[in-house]
Amino acid sequence: MSTPITAAYYRGNKTFTVEQTEAPAPAAGEVSVRIAYCGICGTDMHVFHGNMDARVGFSRVIGHEMSGTVHAVGDGVDGVSVGQKVVVRPLDHCGDCPACNAGHQHICHRLKFLGLDTDGAMQEIWNVPAHTLHILPDDMRMDHAALIEPVAVACHDVRLSGLKNGEDVLVIGGGPIGMLCAMVARDAGGNVVISEVNETRLAIAEKLGFATVNPAKQDLPAEINKRTGDKGADVVFEVSGTQPGVDAMTASAATRARIVMVAIHATKPQIDLFQFFWRELQLIGARVYEPQDYEKAIRIVTSGGVDADTVITDVSPLADIQAAFESLDASPTALKSLIKVGEDS
Amino acid sequence: MSTPITAAYYRGNKTFTVEQTEAPAPAAGEVSVRIAYCGICGTDMHVFHGNMDARVGFSRVIGHEMSGTVHAVGDGVDGVSVGQKVVVRPLDHCGDCPACNAGHQHICHRLKFLGLDTDGAMQEIWNVPAHTLHILPDDMRMDHAALIEPVAVACHDVRLSGLKNGEDVLVIGGGPIGMLCAMVARDAGGNVVISEVNETRLAIAEKLGFATVNPAKQDLPAEINKRTGDKGADVVFEVSGTQPGVDAMTASAATRARIVMVAIHATKPQIDLFQFFWRELQLIGARVYEPQDYEKAIRIVTSGGVDADTVITDVSPLADIQAAFESLDASPTALKSLIKVGEDS
Repeated sequence: MSTPITAAYYRGNKTFTVEQTEAPAPAAGEVSVRIAYCGICGTDMHVFHGNMDARVGFSRVIGHEMSGTVHAVGDGVDGVSVGQKVVVRPLDHCGDCPACNAGHQHICHRLKFLGLDTDGAMQEIWNVPAHTLHILPDDMRMDHAALIEPVAVACHDVRLSGLKNGEDVLVIGGGPIGMLCAMVARDAGGNVVISEVNETRLAIAEKLGFATVNPAKQDLPAEINKRTGDKGADVVFEVSGTQPGVDAMTASAATRARIVMVAIHATKPQIDLFQFFWRELQLIGARVYEPQDYEKAIRIVTSGGVDADTVITDVSPLADIQAAFESLDASPTALKSLIKVGEDS
Repeated sequence: MSTPITAAYYRGNKTFTVEQTEAPAPAAGEVSVRIAYCGICGTDMHVFHGNMDARVGFSRVIGHEMSGTVHAVGDGVDGVSVGQKVVVRPLDHCGDCPACNAGHQHICHRLKFLGLDTDGAMQEIWNVPAHTLHILPDDMRMDHAALIEPVAVACHDVRLSGLKNGEDVLVIGGGPIGMLCAMVARDAGGNVVISEVNETRLAIAEKLGFATVNPAKQDLPAEINKRTGDKGADVVFEVSGTQPGVDAMTASAATRARIVMVAIHATKPQIDLFQFFWRELQLIGARVYEPQDYEKAIRIVTSGGVDADTVITDVSPLADIQAAFESLDASPTALKSLIKVGEDS
């Protein structure tokens, strides 16, 4: 039995249309989720800009940073009840490639990313494989819950870094993911400095209580050495995706530092491999998340380890999705814009 | 009480002089070692070429890949007896820098490398800090023991890689250290392929029983994928120090592969950081060795896990050190040339 819903479709050429359609009943192994909020990810902005047209096409419902409640449960699904608050970990793996066989399903060689390779959460009801669900506490705020997906990215990055309590942390790049990495690293006991060139973002970082350096005005490695007794940062998150960021990550790193490669570098930057040898640095690539990162993200958003009210800078109704994307495009220093897809529950 | 000895001095301009001198008695905390053999390291060739004149000067006894026996023991040294067979781990740390404070004495920020920053083993008696000694089995062959230092480099590289039994290993660069990495990795259960462009070295690698690829003739990543069911290499050792080697290390790596940076890259190559993100690769810098790597190297040379007789391609007396360096300079594809400094014991 299908249900009438409203959905936003990406139609190419920086355009969304908001249309009435029908959500089918969940198939076997699926769950229907009634969407509350859906955040706009940097990847969604890439879609908006037309950079991913070949992958998503022109009749795609995008969106994956969502919160919602269970609307209906398909055959063969256990442990999920109608009305439960949930988030979706938007990864569907093949189960039979070298990565899956090695237990790394989250970076499956044939990974389907829900909301890009399939329809996503910018619609009132979203049908997803049951294995992608995480159940939320009953009293969780649904706007805050829409942050769980990007917070899970940060939890994955921090977990792979092996950060220990009391270590010195440098986050290079203070966009949404950099800022979340900083908050999750602080929650884990790190002494965090954020490097960022944009003054608006620097002000947000300071409002969030972080030490900051503007590398356009200060010598970043010298500042980090000064603050760490000439040791350098024990953990560096490279979130800038720039050559100066790559230069700074090796120049600011302590002996045996762990550098986490969070950014997507579209070109091949030059890298100071001598420093990797000389100081026995480690570079750790990190992509999306694993189930335990989602569980950690739920705990940290619930506990206030991430300041959700500061991170969420805008909320717009689904009917205004076009204006919301245009506004974010015009002010790229906003942190997190949410689309309110349905009613809070 | 000093002892008359023969020593070889680096005098600059690709020249050694072999002279009579006096070895002083060991100071407190020191041990005098009567040298049996001393191998010629790639670093020693850099000295010979004049590339390290500012660091070593023109009255330096170089050499650190040595074997010997205890000749005399200084005051305050326990647990060492005259006549014991020993090797020296040629690292003297400051004990008070950020690296030492973090337990990484082997990459101390003010590390003195014995045989470069101080006099070394190309002399009949060498006085060294007692903490640098490792005791050898009584029945160890002293020519084989001169390989322990470079084998310890390979043991450090393999240990930091976290190589597990049955994993697929790619060694990029089949020089002495690459070949030793391959042997130590095979001893740890790795399925090893060596990539090398020089036909002489390829022939040695095959004689040692390794699968080989010549990337000048074959598509290296395609070959590795073919041999691993499209998985890629679980562990890669980059020992070439070249841009093509850096390109191949990411292109041949499995999801979550560990890439060990063994080579010294004098320039900053371009690197495919996207692959680090996409496949969650790790890059692990590795430099010299820690005490447990020496103990492992002693065991692996003793057990035959390293084929010492194939690795040692030349032995010359100390009197002929000049000719030995010139010969190695003319045939850089030889594996390991030893100088016989004193008598076997």
